[in-house]
Amino acid sequence: MDMHQLTRSLNAKNDSKIVMLVADGLGGLPLSAGGLTELETARTPNLDALARIGVCGGSIPVKPGITPGSGPGHLGLFGYDPLQYMIGRGALEATGIGFKLGPHDVAARGNFCTLDRQGNITDRRAGRIATEQSAPLARKLNAVKIPGVELFVEPVKEHRFVVVFRAAGLGDRVHDTDPQATGVPPLDPVAGDSGCQQTVEVVRQFVAGAQKLLADEQKANGLTLRGFAAHPKMPSFMDVYGLRAAAIAVYPMYKGLARLVGMDIVGKAQTLSEQMGVLEANWDDYDFFFIHFKYTDSTGEDGDFDAKVKRIEELDAALPRITHLKPTVLIVTGDHSTPSLLRAHSWHPVPTLLVSKVCRADGCQEYSERECLRGGLGQFEAKYLMLLALANAGRLDKFGA
Amino acid sequence: MDMHQLTRSLNAKNDSKIVMLVADGLGGLPLSAGGLTELETARTPNLDALARIGVCGGSIPVKPGITPGSGPGHLGLFGYDPLQYMIGRGALEATGIGFKLGPHDVAARGNFCTLDRQGNITDRRAGRIATEQSAPLARKLNAVKIPGVELFVEPVKEHRFVVVFRAAGLGDRVHDTDPQATGVPPLDPVAGDSGCQQTVEVVRQFVAGAQKLLADEQKANGLTLRGFAAHPKMPSFMDVYGLRAAAIAVYPMYKGLARLVGMDIVGKAQTLSEQMGVLEANWDDYDFFFIHFKYTDSTGEDGDFDAKVKRIEELDAALPRITHLKPTVLIVTGDHSTPSLLRAHSWHPVPTLLVSKVCRADGCQEYSERECLRGGLGQFEAKYLMLLALANAGRLDKFGA
Repeated sequence: MDMHQLTRSLNAKNDSKIVMLVADGLGGLPLSAGGLTELETARTPNLDALARIGVCGGSIPVKPGITPGSGPGHLGLFGYDPLQYMIGRGALEATGIGFKLGPHDVAARGNFCTLDRQGNITDRRAGRIATEQSAPLARKLNAVKIPGVELFVEPVKEHRFVVVFRAAGLGDRVHDTDPQATGVPPLDPVAGDSGCQQTVEVVRQFVAGAQKLLADEQKANGLTLRGFAAHPKMPSFMDVYGLRAAAIAVYPMYKGLARLVGMDIVGKAQTLSEQMGVLEANWDDYDFFFIHFKYTDSTGEDGDFDAKVKRIEELDAALPRITHLKPTVLIVTGDHSTPSLLRAHSWHPVPTLLVSKVCRADGCQEYSERECLRGGLGQFEAKYLMLLALANAGRLDKFGA
Repeated sequence: MDMHQLTRSLNAKNDSKIVMLVADGLGGLPLSAGGLTELETARTPNLDALARIGVCGGSIPVKPGITPGSGPGHLGLFGYDPLQYMIGRGALEATGIGFKLGPHDVAARGNFCTLDRQGNITDRRAGRIATEQSAPLARKLNAVKIPGVELFVEPVKEHRFVVVFRAAGLGDRVHDTDPQATGVPPLDPVAGDSGCQQTVEVVRQFVAGAQKLLADEQKANGLTLRGFAAHPKMPSFMDVYGLRAAAIAVYPMYKGLARLVGMDIVGKAQTLSEQMGVLEANWDDYDFFFIHFKYTDSTGEDGDFDAKVKRIEELDAALPRITHLKPTVLIVTGDHSTPSLLRAHSWHPVPTLLVSKVCRADGCQEYSERECLRGGLGQFEAKYLMLLALANAGRLDKFGA
């Protein structure tokens, strides 16, 4: 019995409210041995007060030692085993720019490249062409006509774009056309299984049409495609948890991930304060709120320890607007660690805090990596966090008699 | 390789003795924020002394956040993955009243109900008819004759009874006849798969015969059946662990659960002191002793914090009679938490204590929820506890060369 069968079978309804505040890349590392992490350095009186009445622990995003991207990181927090539910590259790229993938879509990542007269690639990234130049080019490719197929080409950044093919019966078992080398031409699309021959034909027509439209370009006179991926099929939060779920995020990627699990995207907040306003405005209409805060990750990726500390303090300052609403369960966590020291996502367990009236407080005195080590949640795989949320909200019946 | 294949393949014989003392529903919660749990409130000098020489931890009965019933709770402690080994409702109900299910049995829970003249249900519980009235009625239903089938009808309590059909070839994929509504008649039994047509015919004959016998009753003139369940097939303690195992329990449910995994039910103890006497009397004849103490759960279910504290102290006082026998491994744990605050089973990890000469003591100073958080067993799924028991008893060989 998998966890979703279990939660479905134990689902109990009530009026509880669950808030999951995700500080992206929250976990950190000290800059030097024996030092403090970003979170330990930050002044966080509100989070520390919650730690004293709540229960803390360390969330392992996927498995010990595994560093997740944003996709698996969030799927884990949402209770979808990231090793079971994979989001293909093309689908994640489409999601990241806010494209609403449908059930008949196959998405791929596109790269503009530079071809010589023989058709061999001389630059796989078209000289990292500026977005201002590449974006109109990408949009131009929408003019390619493929009978029976709806086509969407959307710019991403520099040489990158997304292509989505929409038609019943398309498959995503299509090999990359990017040869990952220069001095050779782009590869022909090839089917990975027999059911994808039609798709390969569609891709072939797109590539041929696109090549014609790009023929006169200096830098971006060719293209490669990779990461073909269909719309990932996931049961919804309503289906598996019985929760009316809302996502309050600023960036398209996180809205897209939330949409994949059936959350409504509410509000158009651009700042944390606006996100709090959206939370307040929608409080009565949902059972579950996912609030995404991006900047703990982006400052970590920049390697800017002090900026990450400031962002954590900014987050802390927003907490009273959440606690004022008296959620039944409040969770503060991250989808992974992004230590400034590493300038990258990492595998380290993420400090996690859960507050409810029945959480069994553990005596933790502050919200920090080292205090969470001693917390009552122990170290746990992120995919179990939703079970704890539901339990603390009284939304899970007893298993077995 | 599952855990039972592993323990079978690594089985080592010796003269060690393992005692697992299960205080049902042991884990608790403070009544108010910052307070002490029942176990933390109780004076437990013997358990605390054991904690100082043993290793502590928190047992997660099934998965984080999942609240188990007694069935899954005990199966976990016995090392049977509760998500793999499910005990159907009817089988658990039969087990709970001490009925010894056999391999050709299908059990169902029965409810007496009240029918109007049109045969529609007016009360699904027959006015919660008193046990003194319903028990003779249930026994009377044994008079129904079904060719080729042995029938057992046993009273449970109030409107509830158990029916067991015994014949080769019966199946348990039969839908409930309880429509879970009034104003409609009981449902006809319907097969959930083609192999259960014969069983449906048997159930139909029983219902028809029973209806005749009940026709003149005021309240209990009808019946519904649900939770059809065959005898759950589980490998025995001897098979998977090489252990001669004895169960010393007062209540039928726990004797029944122990019987399902092949334990001998020894003694007829009615008190904890008598249970200790049974332990002493059988010490030489078994390798493993499961001792079940019910009252930490029942006081928790009653919401009686003080009574639960007293029961824990009663348990503590019995400990010297166990330690005097010098078991190789002594485990004290619970099948789940039953905080008086919640008046119900809960998902919270259960304080667990293991003492052996080789357990690697962890510096815990007392047996309590918060001290167990810092214990050397960490937080672990209950299904792994038997592996630790066997290891500490020297009963598991090295895995691999």
